[in-house]
Amino acid sequence: MVDIIHRVGVRASASSVYTALSTTDGIAGWWTKETTGDTRIGGTLNVRFLAESGQEIGSMNMEIVELIPDKTVHWRFTSGPDEWIDTDVVFDLAEDGDYTIVLFSHKNWREAIEFTAHCSMKWATFMLSLKDLVETGIGKPSPTDIKIDNWN
Amino acid sequence: MVDIIHRVGVRASASSVYTALSTTDGIAGWWTKETTGDTRIGGTLNVRFLAESGQEIGSMNMEIVELIPDKTVHWRFTSGPDEWIDTDVVFDLAEDGDYTIVLFSHKNWREAIEFTAHCSMKWATFMLSLKDLVETGIGKPSPTDIKIDNWN
Repeated sequence: MVDIIHRVGVRASASSVYTALSTTDGIAGWWTKETTGDTRIGGTLNVRFLAESGQEIGSMNMEIVELIPDKTVHWRFTSGPDEWIDTDVVFDLAEDGDYTIVLFSHKNWREAIEFTAHCSMKWATFMLSLKDLVETGIGKPSPTDIKIDNWN
Repeated sequence: MVDIIHRVGVRASASSVYTALSTTDGIAGWWTKETTGDTRIGGTLNVRFLAESGQEIGSMNMEIVELIPDKTVHWRFTSGPDEWIDTDVVFDLAEDGDYTIVLFSHKNWREAIEFTAHCSMKWATFMLSLKDLVETGIGKPSPTDIKIDNWN
């Protein structure tokens, strides 16, 4: 199995970061504006990605597997790109001085393919967006996300 | 072994991207301004990272293992952080329409630790810097690099 892992530090409380990861308004502020669903453990969230023209370029469902306030958010993808089905995204939070350190992982890819490399880059830009959102109030969620290549 | 992989698309020729990866002036434009050494195959490059105060916060040597013009740049680290020794960085380039696609990999980490996750994020920001440098002439090399956490 292959994992994407990133570490980012947000100059804010773990509680602020946790809110951005565990509410639809929060996720809509850094990942995609089109975030809907049930944010409770066992609930399903839907995230949709639109081109600037408004055309849908992607949609995924994820189950909320675990929520530990100010510590852990764990999602498992149940629909979306084939490569994402049954993969897990986990955010582990820990305060360290002025920062909350976010250990991000997108785990259990079947193989490391070009799409994995694309997603690793995109997740990094969304981690910068999460940091911006919590620190300044303004993130870069889709469709205003940072474009990295010819796939988005 | 653990690999960091990223995919980025640069709106420029493979030749322009290759120049940014295979010359000291190029590398100084996107990774660190403090880049010196012998850019030929078998040569050694030294890269140093300074805090904005001017204090050195890191230094690495890498051997140029392979250079295929407009296709491949392959480095192997010979000094620097323990975790980097004997790891490989490879850039594979391929033109696709208006883009040159860069497949970046930092291969052969002994384990996936928090420092690996930090480096994965930092490499992603340096890939954005490479893209900016080649597309606009202005990258974000150290010490003007994007800061991501409490380690830099």
